[in-house]
Amino acid sequence: MRTLFPALLLALTTIVLPVLANDGDILEHIRQHGQNSRLAYELVESLTTEVGPRLGGGENDARAREWAQAMLKKLGFDEVHTEPVTFPRWRRDVESATVVTPYRHTLAVTALGGSGPTPTGGITAEVIAFDSLQALRQASKKDIQGKIVFVNQAMPRHKDGHGYGQTVGARYMSSQIVAEKGGKAVLIRSIGTDNNRLPHTGIMKVSADKPGVPAAAVSIPDAQLLHNLLARGKPVNVHLKLGSHWDGEYTSANVLGDLRGEEKPDEYVLLACHLDSWDLGTGAIDDGAGCAIMMAAVAHLKALDLKPKRSIRVLLAANEEYGLAGAKAYAKAHAAEARKHVIGGESDFGAGRIYRFDSHVQKQAFGVMDEIARAIAPLGITRGHNQAKGGADVSRMKALGMPVVDMKQDGTNYFDYHHTANDTLDKIDPEAMAQNATAWALFAWLAANHEGDFGWFESTQHDP
Amino acid sequence: MRTLFPALLLALTTIVLPVLANDGDILEHIRQHGQNSRLAYELVESLTTEVGPRLGGGENDARAREWAQAMLKKLGFDEVHTEPVTFPRWRRDVESATVVTPYRHTLAVTALGGSGPTPTGGITAEVIAFDSLQALRQASKKDIQGKIVFVNQAMPRHKDGHGYGQTVGARYMSSQIVAEKGGKAVLIRSIGTDNNRLPHTGIMKVSADKPGVPAAAVSIPDAQLLHNLLARGKPVNVHLKLGSHWDGEYTSANVLGDLRGEEKPDEYVLLACHLDSWDLGTGAIDDGAGCAIMMAAVAHLKALDLKPKRSIRVLLAANEEYGLAGAKAYAKAHAAEARKHVIGGESDFGAGRIYRFDSHVQKQAFGVMDEIARAIAPLGITRGHNQAKGGADVSRMKALGMPVVDMKQDGTNYFDYHHTANDTLDKIDPEAMAQNATAWALFAWLAANHEGDFGWFESTQHDP
Repeated sequence: MRTLFPALLLALTTIVLPVLANDGDILEHIRQHGQNSRLAYELVESLTTEVGPRLGGGENDARAREWAQAMLKKLGFDEVHTEPVTFPRWRRDVESATVVTPYRHTLAVTALGGSGPTPTGGITAEVIAFDSLQALRQASKKDIQGKIVFVNQAMPRHKDGHGYGQTVGARYMSSQIVAEKGGKAVLIRSIGTDNNRLPHTGIMKVSADKPGVPAAAVSIPDAQLLHNLLARGKPVNVHLKLGSHWDGEYTSANVLGDLRGEEKPDEYVLLACHLDSWDLGTGAIDDGAGCAIMMAAVAHLKALDLKPKRSIRVLLAANEEYGLAGAKAYAKAHAAEARKHVIGGESDFGAGRIYRFDSHVQKQAFGVMDEIARAIAPLGITRGHNQAKGGADVSRMKALGMPVVDMKQDGTNYFDYHHTANDTLDKIDPEAMAQNATAWALFAWLAANHEGDFGWFESTQHDP
Repeated sequence: MRTLFPALLLALTTIVLPVLANDGDILEHIRQHGQNSRLAYELVESLTTEVGPRLGGGENDARAREWAQAMLKKLGFDEVHTEPVTFPRWRRDVESATVVTPYRHTLAVTALGGSGPTPTGGITAEVIAFDSLQALRQASKKDIQGKIVFVNQAMPRHKDGHGYGQTVGARYMSSQIVAEKGGKAVLIRSIGTDNNRLPHTGIMKVSADKPGVPAAAVSIPDAQLLHNLLARGKPVNVHLKLGSHWDGEYTSANVLGDLRGEEKPDEYVLLACHLDSWDLGTGAIDDGAGCAIMMAAVAHLKALDLKPKRSIRVLLAANEEYGLAGAKAYAKAHAAEARKHVIGGESDFGAGRIYRFDSHVQKQAFGVMDEIARAIAPLGITRGHNQAKGGADVSRMKALGMPVVDMKQDGTNYFDYHHTANDTLDKIDPEAMAQNATAWALFAWLAANHEGDFGWFESTQHDP
């Protein structure tokens, strides 16, 4: 594999450290090394250029895992292995939508993850619009019967991205609701904050016992066009064609890289990300960046020849996007030793700078959280609250009781690109990547070396 | 046609003016009426929603002309007519590009206007990159023979858009140069300033005696990906498939709307725009906005019941984008009466606010130019120089000697959307549209009523 990653050669030089007098010196060295490093950026450049889109079960799933294993070894992780993750496979296929009356328009459209296909010739039906999921829920079957439902709810832009939670229900729920009410298909306004003719995909709710209708997202300018067409008061008919479908089972894998602890090697600080991505872009911000950040964070400690007391594990999870399959498989495989995962966190919110550090730990760990906060404060990060959520790929471990932290990233622009063809490397600022990796390195180092524990929470898991 | 444009009904109410004491009162009325009007925005909304993309010779060419004639009549123009414009028709068709080695990637690509097709199965060849047209010109045939040439020149962003002129040569010239040097095809980095996976089309040079190779633009993120792939030093092979081709002749028409002058009805102030657009978006900023601005400018005078001394003519030109066909046909049809066109101008640079007023008139008209400058100064417009260029659709009349003016618009973001699928209504600010239409109304009113002439220039036309 020596020639695989030529751009990375320089970044991997091991640093010869001066004798470190005290912990403060070590933290300063991590900060200096991390902030001057382009490693995290180079890793996401390598992944997006040499692998590209990584839909779970898609043509690049295996190549992504090969890339990750080779790279973790190259970065000096002590132990690299994979754990199988099996899930139903979904495939995208042809997708098109055309307004046929009163004026002909081609719409920029993409199937929602999990959508089944239209009949081979497509569906042509009149469009009925709702400006929110709530309005759709309240609509009568009579109004929806035989129609293509258009849910046109705009997502507001916020630094912390909370507009997503306010609007993503339209994407997640509409297909089943429209099926219940006798509609033929659903188009949603993309859940995003941009003005580009690039629709945002994303998973919708799929249940074996509750079939949905074919569902797709239109780009935001196309949603505005549909709105303007409907405002004329004449019937708007759309022809929709989707070939997307479920196709058997696929076995992928979680990829794990450990930096072994010197004193408590069987205890872990868990740093998660997901290796899969949607298929439309190259998965740079979602979540190539997160994996690159976490890999670089540990590589920084290794490059500085720092030996943590506990092990630090990077989990590159399989198929987060349409199944949370890797997170579920990890929690299941490691349930018996769950409490050995003393604390965890995930990077899965793009490549923006971290502005706040939240925790979800028991009281006995408040002191070390404050210590971490002081260590990352020079990076421009403030201390937040103790209600951290943890990311999706640590959510099942958190449900078992694992303490978590959040490094809150500036997501002001994240939903301009999220789940679109625009999720590409050029959206990433190398300096913000360096800041992220440095913060996680400092967290991992201090958490792994913390003498006490972080507490444990009662399990909230109902379907183990 | 009464029910065609319901949204416009309110905007068309004729204003009952108080008795106007003097010229200053009239100018103030035009300013107030224009700036409070949404007419220009409503016109571009109507055109983009009810007609959509308007490729010269394409499926919407005739519908656009019908729209324009009906709307000019509805707006109260005294005389509406069309003049035939015949040109070779170009059609877009299938278009795709895939990197096949060393790593597979689908590229966002679109044929350049005028490109011929690849062989049916497409072309697969190694890519050779140049960072400028100049570098391509200097390259040897040996290097280019059998290759797909990639011209990767970035366009800088400027308020006046002058980065376009600096880089558009790569789009215009590369196909013929690559053909001369034995290359198989050409990919250019899109001539644009955005970071979207939406390629920018645009015309390339086409000569009967000098065939070019098939040519396409890749989006800017894809150009950066290609660059990063090539930087690895291994052969990069691309499979390119284009179906675009020339297809006989088509007869479209220029659409003309006149507000007849009271004293010199056979003298014209010419306000131009082009009715056609590229096919990827809905032609909102290029040039639906320009036509809407010019139509609204004259409609404002009509709504205020103002009767100019000279006639004011709006020319909605046919097929500017890949032939300048309407401009050529107009100059040819009106060559004998060219000097009756006392002055002209065009709106064809999007929908941004006007910040400067340039002229190209003889000395005797400097006074009235200053008067116009004073009238539009309250709109935030400064007086510029006397080297105005005139837009493309008045260029042939200018070549005959016609004086012109430029209303310089803020084009900072224009090339983010220009010639892409992103050229849609949502990119337009209604207030900026109102400012534009008001400025042109003031210009048209003062120019039409100017007692003297504007001079005439020596013809620079070499191929009449």
